[in-house]
Parts: sequence; structure tokens; C-alpha cells
Amino acid sequence: MKNPEPLRSLYWEKDALYLLDQRLLPGKIDYIRCCTADAVVASIREMAVRGAPAIGVSAAYGMVLAAREAKENAVTAVKTAATELRSTRPTAVNLDWAVSRMERCLENAGAKSGEALTDILLKEARTIHDEDVNANRRLGAYGAALIPESAAILTHCNAGALATAGYGTALGVIRAAAEGGKRVHVYVDETRPLLQGARLTALELLQEGIPATLIVDSSAGHLISTGRVSLVIVGADRIAANGDTANKVGTYTLAVLAERHGIPFYIAAPCSTIDLAVESGNEIVIEERDPDEITTFAGQAVAPAGIDAFNPAFDITPAALIDALITERGVLRRPDRAGLERLMAKGEGQDV
Amino acid sequence: MKNPEPLRSLYWEKDALYLLDQRLLPGKIDYIRCCTADAVVASIREMAVRGAPAIGVSAAYGMVLAAREAKENAVTAVKTAATELRSTRPTAVNLDWAVSRMERCLENAGAKSGEALTDILLKEARTIHDEDVNANRRLGAYGAALIPESAAILTHCNAGALATAGYGTALGVIRAAAEGGKRVHVYVDETRPLLQGARLTALELLQEGIPATLIVDSSAGHLISTGRVSLVIVGADRIAANGDTANKVGTYTLAVLAERHGIPFYIAAPCSTIDLAVESGNEIVIEERDPDEITTFAGQAVAPAGIDAFNPAFDITPAALIDALITERGVLRRPDRAGLERLMAKGEGQDV
Repeated sequence: MKNPEPLRSLYWEKDALYLLDQRLLPGKIDYIRCCTADAVVASIREMAVRGAPAIGVSAAYGMVLAAREAKENAVTAVKTAATELRSTRPTAVNLDWAVSRMERCLENAGAKSGEALTDILLKEARTIHDEDVNANRRLGAYGAALIPESAAILTHCNAGALATAGYGTALGVIRAAAEGGKRVHVYVDETRPLLQGARLTALELLQEGIPATLIVDSSAGHLISTGRVSLVIVGADRIAANGDTANKVGTYTLAVLAERHGIPFYIAAPCSTIDLAVESGNEIVIEERDPDEITTFAGQAVAPAGIDAFNPAFDITPAALIDALITERGVLRRPDRAGLERLMAKGEGQDV
Repeated sequence: MKNPEPLRSLYWEKDALYLLDQRLLPGKIDYIRCCTADAVVASIREMAVRGAPAIGVSAAYGMVLAAREAKENAVTAVKTAATELRSTRPTAVNLDWAVSRMERCLENAGAKSGEALTDILLKEARTIHDEDVNANRRLGAYGAALIPESAAILTHCNAGALATAGYGTALGVIRAAAEGGKRVHVYVDETRPLLQGARLTALELLQEGIPATLIVDSSAGHLISTGRVSLVIVGADRIAANGDTANKVGTYTLAVLAERHGIPFYIAAPCSTIDLAVESGNEIVIEERDPDEITTFAGQAVAPAGIDAFNPAFDITPAALIDALITERGVLRRPDRAGLERLMAKGEGQDV
């Protein structure tokens, strides 16, 4: 059987942004047609679209839609949309990175009509979109070199095509290894509360024909301690100047387990995830989401009424636990401030 | 508002064992009336009743039911039931412990009629039942001394009244500390896949009026690393002669995190959980349960059809990570073979 066409997290067609509603997966494939910046804001906030790079690209298109719908004062409308889009989710920096880049494009464009601005901004958004896919393919190729033959790879959440504009970061590395002929087996943390591992990563791996086994997040310790995992690889939402990394809650625990059992722990992320303006993980804001995500499931209560719940969406993995950061500019071993500054300053293809 | 009567995991009334169907909690309170050993076997296997001590007591009553329903050859019928009951779940030793104790009672009784045997076995089952409640209260009192004022306590799964014949082990310690006037706050791991933390522990704590916050299992690392947890306390399903401990999958990870961040990690369990016949954790059989427990929720698919899943129900925490074992005979610091042998040989109330 031929593999089905991989799902796209988002695409632009005619005058609208189409966002795959990832909350409905794997049961249903449905694209939300966004004709306004507000629709994009809502889709990011409610996690119809999620994954740091995908959020960034979506926000860029959101600014295009703001220009397009503006009757007058298009520049002001785009600026307002930028503020709204930035406020949707606090932890992933790719959002801020993409919005800032679109703002620079807006400034360079000068005072133009809404229609002219739309064209200029659309071109920039498309560039960001294409660059993300290309970055993923390049980081996939760099990362594949780190994957040994017959590796058993543990991953958390979804850092795949669905989390990006295409191909994926952590899953991009796994894909590239598989495409290069390596046999790999992937253990997929289901990733509570929203089950991005069970719903999204498992789906992508099934579609690719890459052998995969789903586990509850708590089983990772059992698997690692019994020698069944060769390495851990995950994506990232923000990487501070010292290498501390915010990613889906549960990542820190995997890094601790990997260190204890002497297996490599890798982060795969495009350079748009690196935030040199933030000194360390202590300064990264951890988004706290609605407790209902924990206490209910598909509208059904899974905990007694009245129980308090705490729902941080991310955690911080200190740089010391990260064996390598895999980016589209190369692999940075033991990321630290000096290495990250070198990486951000360097040209394509140079050694880090 | 007066607290509601705490739920009982099981009780014997007239000629039947009543088992609270814990799969329906917190939504529905329903007791399964078991009139046959087979009904008890099914209830244990399908986890209507769960928790190592509660399973042991249920199995004891199951053997009473086998005697009661036997038309002739009651001794053989009880022996057959013993084999069936033992086979239901492999990891918790309290099951084997209770069945063995009932078998000794059967042997001592000699060849008797079904009716006479029923009376003898019922007396023994009731004794095991009462002893479990009393053991929990005593270990609660010992353990409460280890809980500092204003402690933030992390627990995993349900080691409460519902996991035992009453009062609870890890939750028994927390209860005793609260009853003794200490202010405590409990962080409750939801405990995937069956959500015993969200459904059962949260319910018990709410009923007791002990402040509690529910989290996904993956958030424990974030909470511990940000200094929000004073200690971890959990129950146990089997403790090997060297102190290695099997408990709900995810426990090992908490022990690793506790050690890394310098907070105590305690096991609370009655001595019936200690298995000196097993040298170390390597020899403990880890039950692997149906992958459907992960891939579906309330009958609804949460993962794509065809995905493989691995569902170990327990993991092993090495003795070196356990700061103390809290039992009804006292607190054993840094459990090891010598200490466990001393504990099992000693009388009530002596120093371990």
C-alpha cells in the first residue's frame, strides 16, 4: 500500500490560510479556513495549530490577513494584529521571531495601500514558510548522522511535520535517518494532557512506515532503565543564550533519565528557536494552561468536581543535560553561550 | 459541610463480598456483589478492585466463596480457587501472601464440610482484613513523624483507603499527618493510563479536606526542579529482599528526580508487601497490560488505528533511591537485606 500523502499543518491558498485542526486528529482531518487575523489568533490560542515553528509561520500569515482585511490604515491594522498574535502563547519564541520579521518587512515597505502591503507581506510569509521546511530538511540531514543503525529512539510530544511547516525537527531527524536506510524504532511518549504523541507523532510515523511503539509518559523511566532506549530526541520551544531549553512539559525528566543511564539527549530545532536575548531558562515564561485539559477528557470528567489542578505546558531542561543541539546550521555539541553565539553568527555549512 | 463517609474498597456482608467498582469512580459509586470465587477473579483481573493490599484481602474472601459454593470436595474447590486467584495479577505479592495464608488455614482445618470450612476461612479472611486496616493505621502513625509541617507532598497512583482494606498506605501517612494537625499540600500525579491519581487519590483527598492539586505525571519533574515539592511518598506492590521496590509505572522516575533534587523519597507499605524470597528487583515480574488501556479512552480511540503500544503496569525502584520504608512495624531507613530481615523478624514496636 502506498503511504498516504503526509498531512500538512498549514497552507495558503488564494486569499486564506488553511490550518489543520490538530485537536481532531487522528479521528478527523479538517482544515480551518482563516480569512482574518483574529481567526489565526484563536486557532493558535486554542491549539488547533501547535508546535513552535508552525505557530510562527501561522502568525506570519495572520499578519498578511490583517493587511488584507484592512479597509484603511493597513499599517496600523497589521501592527495591532502583531500585538494580538504575540500574546497568544508566551513560551515558544518562534512566534515572536516570525512576528518581528514581518514587522521589519512592514517597516521597510513604508506607507502603502492594504492591497500593496498584502502582496509584500504575503511574499515574506511565504519565504518564512519555505525557509522552515528547508531548515527542517537540513537539520534532519545533520541530525541523521547522530542516529546509529538499529537505534531505539524515544521522543516526546510532536516535533514532526505537524509541528512545523513541514518535515519536522526531532521527527525530521528520524525521517532523514530512515530515508538514509537506517533501521530505527521509535518509542512515542503519549504526552499528556493533550496527547500530541499518541494523536500526532504516532500518526506521522505510521504514515511514514517507521516502526513505532506508543507508551504512557511514565513508562519512559522503565524503558530507559531496562536498556531499551538508545537515545532521546525532542524539539524545542525556546532556547536561552546559555543553552537552557524550554520544551513540552516532561522533557526535563527525560533529560535527567538519559543522563543517569548514559544515553544521549538531543534537541532538534531551527535557529529561529534560539533566543539570545534571554540569559537562561530561569527567564523563560512557562505557559500555564486551563486545568480542564487535565480534569476532563473529550468533555467527560476524569477527576472529581472541585479538585484543583496545575497545568504547566512546558518545562526547562538545563543546558548541561543536552548532549547536542541539532539545527539547520549544523550540530552544536554541549550547547552553551559561546557555542550558540558562534552558531547564530555563522554562515550555512560551516563547522560550529 | 460534614465530610461524606469515606468509600470502602470492599466489605463482606451476609454471604457475599462487595467490591467497589473503582473503574467507575469518580463518576459513579457501584459495588459488585461477588458470590463466587470466579467473580472475584474477574474483578481483580479487570481492576474493578486494585491496589496490592486490597487485592490480597479480596482474594482471601474469594477463597471463602469457593468453599461456600462447593457442593462437595470443598478442599479441592478452595485449592483450585487459590490457583486461579494467584494467576490474576503477577506483580503485587500481597495477593500471593494472602492466598498462602488462607491455604495454611485450609490445611490446619483438615477435611471438613464446605459449610464448616466456610466458617473457618471466613474468620481468617476477616482477620486479614482487620489486620490490614490496623497495619495501615500503625504505619500511618510511624510515617507521620517523617512529614514536616507545611510539607508539599507528591504522590503517584492511589495508595489510599481504596487501594487497601481501609485508611491507606502512602495516603494513610498523609492522613495521619493531617489528623495530627500538620498542614500539608498534596500534589497528585494523575497516573496514566488508568488515572488512579485523578480518579481515586484526588477523590479521597477531597473527601478528607486535605488540600490537593492534580498534575499530569510529566509535570512532576517541573514541580520538583522548581523547588515546589518537599518529599515524595508512594505505596508498593512488591519489595524484594534487597529493598528494590515494584510500584506503579512512573515511580522509578520520581525516585530519580527526588534524589537529583535532594528531597526524600519514601515507600509506605505493610510487611505483607515484603518478599524475602525474591533477591532483587530483577526477579520481579512486571505485568504488561492490554495496549488498549493506552490507545483508547472511554471506548474512544486516542491514537491512530494500527499503532503498537507497550503498557507495563509497574517499574522497579532500586533500594539505593529509597530513603525510608514505612511499615506497621516501624520505619526502616535505607532499606537493604539486613534491615528487611531484621524488620520481618522483629516484634511490634521494637526499633528497626
